[in-house]
Amino acid sequence: MNDKVKAEDTVIFYDKEKDKKYFINLSLTPKFGTEYGIIETEKLIGIEYGAEIKTHKGYPYLLLPSTVYDFIMYKLNRLTQIIYPKDAAYIALRLDVKPGDKIIESGVGSGAMTAIFAHIVGSSGKVISYEKREEFIKNAKSNLNKLGFIDRIEIKHRDISEGFDENDADALFLDVREPWYYLHHGYKALKKGRMVGILVPTVNQIIETLKKLEELPFIDVEVLEILVRHYKTVHERLRPEDRMSAHTAFLIFARKV
Amino acid sequence: MNDKVKAEDTVIFYDKEKDKKYFINLSLTPKFGTEYGIIETEKLIGIEYGAEIKTHKGYPYLLLPSTVYDFIMYKLNRLTQIIYPKDAAYIALRLDVKPGDKIIESGVGSGAMTAIFAHIVGSSGKVISYEKREEFIKNAKSNLNKLGFIDRIEIKHRDISEGFDENDADALFLDVREPWYYLHHGYKALKKGRMVGILVPTVNQIIETLKKLEELPFIDVEVLEILVRHYKTVHERLRPEDRMSAHTAFLIFARKV
Amino acid sequence: MNDKVKAEDTVIFYDKEKDKKYFINLSLTPKFGTEYGIIETEKLIGIEYGAEIKTHKGYPYLLLPSTVYDFIMYKLNRLTQIIYPKDAAYIALRLDVKPGDKIIESGVGSGAMTAIFAHIVGSSGKVISYEKREEFIKNAKSNLNKLGFIDRIEIKHRDISEGFDENDADALFLDVREPWYYLHHGYKALKKGRMVGILVPTVNQIIETLKKLEELPFIDVEVLEILVRHYKTVHERLRPEDRMSAHTAFLIFARKV
Amino acid sequence: MNDKVKAEDTVIFYDKEKDKKYFINLSLTPKFGTEYGIIETEKLIGIEYGAEIKTHKGYPYLLLPSTVYDFIMYKLNRLTQIIYPKDAAYIALRLDVKPGDKIIESGVGSGAMTAIFAHIVGSSGKVISYEKREEFIKNAKSNLNKLGFIDRIEIKHRDISEGFDENDADALFLDVREPWYYLHHGYKALKKGRMVGILVPTVNQIIETLKKLEELPFIDVEVLEILVRHYKTVHERLRPEDRMSAHTAFLIFARKV
Repeated sequence: MNDKVKAEDTVIFYDKEKDKKYFINLSLTPKFGTEYGIIETEKLIGIEYGAEIKTHKGYPYLLLPSTVYDFIMYKLNRLTQIIYPKDAAYIALRLDVKPGDKIIESGVGSGAMTAIFAHIVGSSGKVISYEKREEFIKNAKSNLNKLGFIDRIEIKHRDISEGFDENDADALFLDVREPWYYLHHGYKALKKGRMVGILVPTVNQIIETLKKLEELPFIDVEVLEILVRHYKTVHERLRPEDRMSAHTAFLIFARKV
Repeated sequence: MNDKVKAEDTVIFYDKEKDKKYFINLSLTPKFGTEYGIIETEKLIGIEYGAEIKTHKGYPYLLLPSTVYDFIMYKLNRLTQIIYPKDAAYIALRLDVKPGDKIIESGVGSGAMTAIFAHIVGSSGKVISYEKREEFIKNAKSNLNKLGFIDRIEIKHRDISEGFDENDADALFLDVREPWYYLHHGYKALKKGRMVGILVPTVNQIIETLKKLEELPFIDVEVLEILVRHYKTVHERLRPEDRMSAHTAFLIFARKV
Repeated sequence: MNDKVKAEDTVIFYDKEKDKKYFINLSLTPKFGTEYGIIETEKLIGIEYGAEIKTHKGYPYLLLPSTVYDFIMYKLNRLTQIIYPKDAAYIALRLDVKPGDKIIESGVGSGAMTAIFAHIVGSSGKVISYEKREEFIKNAKSNLNKLGFIDRIEIKHRDISEGFDENDADALFLDVREPWYYLHHGYKALKKGRMVGILVPTVNQIIETLKKLEELPFIDVEVLEILVRHYKTVHERLRPEDRMSAHTAFLIFARKV
Repeated sequence: MNDKVKAEDTVIFYDKEKDKKYFINLSLTPKFGTEYGIIETEKLIGIEYGAEIKTHKGYPYLLLPSTVYDFIMYKLNRLTQIIYPKDAAYIALRLDVKPGDKIIESGVGSGAMTAIFAHIVGSSGKVISYEKREEFIKNAKSNLNKLGFIDRIEIKHRDISEGFDENDADALFLDVREPWYYLHHGYKALKKGRMVGILVPTVNQIIETLKKLEELPFIDVEVLEILVRHYKTVHERLRPEDRMSAHTAFLIFARKV
């Protein structure tokens, strides 16, 4: 029993023969075309995922649902370095993000972390993102709109040096160049006992952030990094891939008391 | 603005002076006692998190909310090797688990992965766990009950060699010794386009699983492992911890087509 | 007090302004020329390392000694995947290679491991390399000749399925596709108590090698891999490089008893 | 054809039945005794390695040669954190240490790095170690004496804030708390074009060292760390060990110009 395609879905057209995938936003792409012909995407609404669909010339694609992972990795328009799934998944768990939560973050970047938060808080939750650069807001909104998450998200065009409006965040996430300047604001925004997560690329930033965390009523301070190693999926010659990402960012977590 | 304590909560009593935490299930622990005195936990219901509470002798604790991470790491009763948050968080994201989803897994182990799934699917979702060993079921139920997740979870006392009852899972997760024997059943249980996740500790198991995945209509096969490295949180002498977990398990993902 | 350039040296011409290095074999390169002019390399013999030398147009270079690391990384002509310094250094130490030793290896590859062994056994030692492919022998000899190591090395054009001629090796190193077929020969070639090292890229090869090692009188069996992570050398923004080698090979060691 | 035991050797008595090894310095241990009887070690001199030897009660041991790796890992008396083989092997290669070289280091620590250097420079080379703490000198001398390396080593009881006596080192290695204070001295001690290696445990020390290196005529600055992951050697269930060393030290290399 499969789900049915909805008008606002981002779907995958899977070309079996070429083992190639196309990620299509139905509401934004009325006509999908390749050399093999055209598909009018409106006609797909209501069809079951898993169905074979054909272009007007008869070329077949498998109609598959997209995931938030797919979207971030293959479809998100990137104006910034994004937060990768390996880090985003751990951040969301460590911050205890769950359906119905109110999450605050800054900045919005390209919206990758925002998307993961929105994915988990669901339609009953809220993600409030502070961002001072207008071009990032515009791009992130476009990305999050394609995911159908725009109702769960509020992007505030603001510099967080003025503080946050909220005082009841279930979690706070900071991905800014100098997080130590905003931690006292962040402290106020959080519910007691709840977690702040901070992402920084350099060890110098870890050092400055730790200094500030020591001055504020935070406990359970944790610094870590996550490494993912992929393997070639050939069972006769199983071995790790030759190259891997050696570093995306360091993650810092702390609990407000 | 903080949350208020509810009768079924697992809470933290934080001893500031000793920097020590106690994880307490209110419904299961009517009296909390140490040498510093007793707290009758029923009286905490309705109090705001973040409040200072005192034993009858006047010793203070900070009342903090627990997180699913805390619960799994510090409170879960373990009869088996658990799936660690670093792996669990990535599995949940890679399987696209979200509020309202129906997730199938086998086996239940000590319930750590089950808890993460239940945490994310929320009260509108469902986690169905197949487990053949009765002592694991009993222990996992006890764990999940303490987390208040028992309504979202169904544990079936069954060997999956007989197959799964469902044919509409949003995601499937297998943590069994010989997953290759059950992948054809797993295939049937999944919605089209949805993901299976498999956890195995040895490379021999990866090899057997890959062989079987090649025979079935799965695409996007991925094999990886996740490493977490913690740092000592001393800003004057910042360095990684001396020791780390070198291996928990390999993760395999694939998409049904 | 610096060393003096000898006729057979491989030297570095360091262009300070461009921070660029040229690796030159004096005996093979009588004239070094760029757009900045020509240097007749014969005239450098007897000069102290560290001296500034000039082209006929007056462009300056710093004359520096090369190291075996430099040679392997920047000057070695590669017909094969080479053994990287991170692995080669550990192999040499684990096999207890020292001045005067007789080391046996197969195959010669591009001569990188051979060069490290020859570097350490010195002029009083010997490296005997078995290789069945003539083009590899020719290339490796050319590489080792440039290093001035050819007197310490004997390359035998032979398939090791016929066994080794020696029975008194201080260490044995195997970098062949199916090492398990040759371990009984390798056993005979080694002195008692001495170490064999084996390099394989896949886990399937580890499995087969371990099976065979169990059948032979080897102890202290060890399997490992070595990862090197580089950092960007900017002190204000210290962080690991973005990408790293995720895998070169697995190393297996065992001791003959 | 096996080597013969010499009076000054450190040997291994291998108990086959128990798979247990004893490391014995012949010159320091005239009588080796266990509950299975006694061996007078003087009688072993001239025997071939690999021979079975027996206690006066007839209990058999296999007589095996020790390696410098064995000695450092199992026999070295440690007053300090030692430099592990994974790091020591890479340091020696990166510094281009070879037979006949003159190597300078500070401090001597427990002598592990000194031993590796002495192992490679051989009887025609020299390792000069500066150390200010007398108890470290005494212990290191005892360790290096057991290895038979004492003739190749000179330990100077000196603080390197006064500088080094030498100006012709083939390589320099610093394992001191604040290496940045001594790099100008180190610069003078080295031959031109030769390498300095520096070992530091914290990122703060990397930052300070990089600052100083930028002020001095060094090129090819490199910062890295080395991770070793071991595997359980069971071919039916091949997998990495559960735990590993996450950090020993960061390594910094640079070339004097």
